[in-house]
Amino acid sequence: MTRLTATYLVETPLPVEEAAAQLAGEQSSGTFVAVPGESEELKQRFAARVERIDLLEVVEHPSLPGGRYADRYQRAEVAVSWPVDNFGANLPAIVSTVGGNLFELRGFTGLKLMDLEIPDDLLQHYVGPKQGVQGCRQLAGVADRPLIGTIIKPSVGLSPTETARLIEPIVAAGIDFIKDDELMANPPHSPFDQRLAALMHVVNRHADRTGKRVMLAMNVTDELDAMLQHYDHLVEAGGTCAMVSVNSVGLVAVRKLCEHGNLAIHGHRNGWGMMTRSPLLGVEFPAYSKLWRLAGVDQLHVNGIDNKFWEPDDSVVRSIAACQEPLGLIRPLLPVVSSGQWGGQAFETYRRTQTTDLLYMAGGGIMAHPGGPAAGVVAIQQAWQAAVDGRTLLEAAADYPEFRQSVAKFGGTELAEQLAGGRG
Amino acid sequence: MTRLTATYLVETPLPVEEAAAQLAGEQSSGTFVAVPGESEELKQRFAARVERIDLLEVVEHPSLPGGRYADRYQRAEVAVSWPVDNFGANLPAIVSTVGGNLFELRGFTGLKLMDLEIPDDLLQHYVGPKQGVQGCRQLAGVADRPLIGTIIKPSVGLSPTETARLIEPIVAAGIDFIKDDELMANPPHSPFDQRLAALMHVVNRHADRTGKRVMLAMNVTDELDAMLQHYDHLVEAGGTCAMVSVNSVGLVAVRKLCEHGNLAIHGHRNGWGMMTRSPLLGVEFPAYSKLWRLAGVDQLHVNGIDNKFWEPDDSVVRSIAACQEPLGLIRPLLPVVSSGQWGGQAFETYRRTQTTDLLYMAGGGIMAHPGGPAAGVVAIQQAWQAAVDGRTLLEAAADYPEFRQSVAKFGGTELAEQLAGGRG
Repeated sequence: MTRLTATYLVETPLPVEEAAAQLAGEQSSGTFVAVPGESEELKQRFAARVERIDLLEVVEHPSLPGGRYADRYQRAEVAVSWPVDNFGANLPAIVSTVGGNLFELRGFTGLKLMDLEIPDDLLQHYVGPKQGVQGCRQLAGVADRPLIGTIIKPSVGLSPTETARLIEPIVAAGIDFIKDDELMANPPHSPFDQRLAALMHVVNRHADRTGKRVMLAMNVTDELDAMLQHYDHLVEAGGTCAMVSVNSVGLVAVRKLCEHGNLAIHGHRNGWGMMTRSPLLGVEFPAYSKLWRLAGVDQLHVNGIDNKFWEPDDSVVRSIAACQEPLGLIRPLLPVVSSGQWGGQAFETYRRTQTTDLLYMAGGGIMAHPGGPAAGVVAIQQAWQAAVDGRTLLEAAADYPEFRQSVAKFGGTELAEQLAGGRG
Repeated sequence: MTRLTATYLVETPLPVEEAAAQLAGEQSSGTFVAVPGESEELKQRFAARVERIDLLEVVEHPSLPGGRYADRYQRAEVAVSWPVDNFGANLPAIVSTVGGNLFELRGFTGLKLMDLEIPDDLLQHYVGPKQGVQGCRQLAGVADRPLIGTIIKPSVGLSPTETARLIEPIVAAGIDFIKDDELMANPPHSPFDQRLAALMHVVNRHADRTGKRVMLAMNVTDELDAMLQHYDHLVEAGGTCAMVSVNSVGLVAVRKLCEHGNLAIHGHRNGWGMMTRSPLLGVEFPAYSKLWRLAGVDQLHVNGIDNKFWEPDDSVVRSIAACQEPLGLIRPLLPVVSSGQWGGQAFETYRRTQTTDLLYMAGGGIMAHPGGPAAGVVAIQQAWQAAVDGRTLLEAAADYPEFRQSVAKFGGTELAEQLAGGRG
C-alpha cells in the first residue's frame, strides 16, 4: 500500500517519540481513550506511522501557549506517513489529515507542516497546472527571460474607464503581464464585466496592432457561480489568465476554477502570512504550494528578494525552488516574484536562483518610475538582461538610462551615491 | 456610505498611529510609493479609516519575526473601517481586504483579526444558517436541552457495514446526533455512498420504530462536484445534516454547499489551531465565526470546557457567546461543544454560559463508557439534566448510576475519591 508522508517541525514538552506517536494516533485511529473496534488488525492497516525523528535544539520556553508544562521543550523534525487508503484522492480530506486538529494538541508547543511527499498513485488523479511555466510563456509570447508584470494601482477606487486609461501606456510599453490588485474584485464601483470590457479593449487593440497579447490577470475572486461566470466572460473576451485569491476562496473552489477551462490561473496568496509567519505554527511553502499545484494553479506568489514584507530572502529563494521541484508528471509552478520589487533585485534574484522562469512583478516600481510607466517597464527589462549577462547593478545603470533612473529613485541613498561616484 | 469595521490586536515597533495608518493604506489605495491616479478625491471616497486606537501594554521583544527593529513594541487594539463600495457583497474579497497581506507587514510584530462589524446593507445579501439553533432542534426532535451527539470512532478503517453495526446501539440508546470523524470522508475502504446507505438504514429503521430521527452528519468533504453529489444522496436517503471541514474546503465552496438545499450544515473547524493558537497572529473566533455564519454554516465547533486541546476555558466561553451574538436577521449558530467531553463538564459549561442551545459532543466519553455506548448516552443526558436543575456533579453522581460510572471512569482520581467518600 502506498503512503503519503508529511514532514513537521515540532516542539514538544514530551519525549519526542511519545509526541510523534500521539500525532500519528490523533490523525488516524485514536481518541483519548481506547474504544471498541480499534483492533490490532485495523491499526496495522490504517494507522499513521512515524517514519523519522531528527532531534534539533532544546529550548526553555514554549513557543506556543496551552501546552503541557515542562522545564525543557525539545524541537525536532518528524516525518509521519499515512496509507493513501485512509483518504483517497480527496484534497480537502488530505488537508484535514496532515493538518487538522494537530495544531491544537497540548503535547506540542510548536507544530509546522513543512513538506508533503505524495505518491504516484495519488498524483495520477491530478492534472495540476494546465499551463505551467511553458504555457504561460507561450500565452504571453516570452521565450527566454522572466515575464515582466505590474499591478494596477491605486488598488481600489478607479472606474473601469479610468483603469483602462491607466493601463494604456503600460500595455504600449511592451509589458508582458498586468493584474488587478487583490483588493479589486467585483465591487459596485468597478463591476467585473465592465472592467473586463474596458481593459480587454486596450489589450486586444494592442494585440491587433503589434501581435503581442498582454496577459491580463483579472481578479475573478467571488462567490462560486459569479467566479465561474467571470472566467467564462474572460475567455469570451480573449483573456488568457484569471487571478484568484487562493486562501480567501479556498482549495475546493479554486480547484473547480482551475478545471473550468484552459486559462492560466494566477494564484494570489494574500492571507499567507497568517499561516506561516509564526516560526513554530502553521505551514511552510513547500507543503502549501504542492496543494495549490495539485489543485491546478499555474502561478503562485513567493514575495521577492528584499521585499517590503517580513519574509527573509532565504525563504523566498526556497519558495522559488519549491515551485520548480519535480512532482511526478505535474508541471512546475511559475513563481510570482513581487512586493516592493523594481529592477534592482534582478541581480540578486538571478544570482541565487539561476532561473528566469519567473513572473517578475513591480507595482510602484513601474508605475512611479520618473520617466513614467513605460520607462519603468523598459528599466526592468534592462535589469534582467544585465543580470543574465552577468553584469552588476552599477554596470547596468551605466549602460541603460531608464534603469539608471530607477536606481536613483528606488535604490536608496547609498546606491545613488555609488552611481554618482561611478559617473564622476 | 456604510462601512465594514474590523478590530485588530496589534503589536508594532512604530508609533501606533503610524502603524494603523499603514494598515489602512495597505488595504485600500496604497503601495510603497505614491502613484499617479491616487487623487485626494479617490482617497476620500475609498480609503480605509482608522476609527479607534486603544493602547495596551509595551513589550521588549517582538512576538513575530521580520518586523522592523525597535527597543520597545507597543500593543494596541485598533479598529479600521472600509466603505462597503470597496468590495461589495463578495465574501472572499472581504477576507482579502480585512486580512490579506496585513499579516506580512514589517510594521507589525503581531496582528490578530479580532472581530468584524458588518453593516446591514451587506448583511441583507446573506441568508446565513438556514436551520440555526431552532431548525436543528426541530430536525433532531430536541426541545429544551442540549443536543447530545457522538463521533464515530475509530476515525478511519471501519467498513460501511462495520460502521453501521457500531452505531446501532448508540442510535438505540436515544442519542440525538452522530457524526463522522473529520478523518473519514470518502476513502476507498468506506466510500461515501456505501457508508450512507448502511448508516441511514440504521437511522431510518430506528425512526420508523420510535419516531425519533437521529441527526446523522455524514462528512461530505470532497472535491466540489463530489461534495454536492454526496449532499444530494444524503437528502435522497432521508438525512438531515451534512458535515464539512470548513477550513480544508474553503469559504466559497462551503457557501455553495450551504446554499445547495436545506440540510443543516455541521461546520468542523479542524485546522483552526493554525490560525489562532499564536497569541498575536491570525484570527479570533468572533471574526472567524461570522464569516462561516454568513456563508450559511449552522453548527460550528468551539471546543469545550476542560478540553483535551490547548484552548483555555475562557476562550471556549467567549466562542459560545459569539455564536449567539445578534447579527441582523441572520440566525445564531449552534455551538458544537467537543474535545475530551463527557458528562462531567456539563456543570461548568452551564454555569458559565447559561445556555442549553448547544450540540454537546462526546466521542470516547460515550463509546468507552463502562456500561457500553448506550449507558454513555444516558449518562450525559443525566449530567445535563442535573446541571440545569442546579445540582452539583457529586449530587448527580449520587442520583444517577450511569453518570456515576462516567465519573469513576473519566473523572480522574480526585473525583473518584470524593465519590467514594460521599458514598461511605
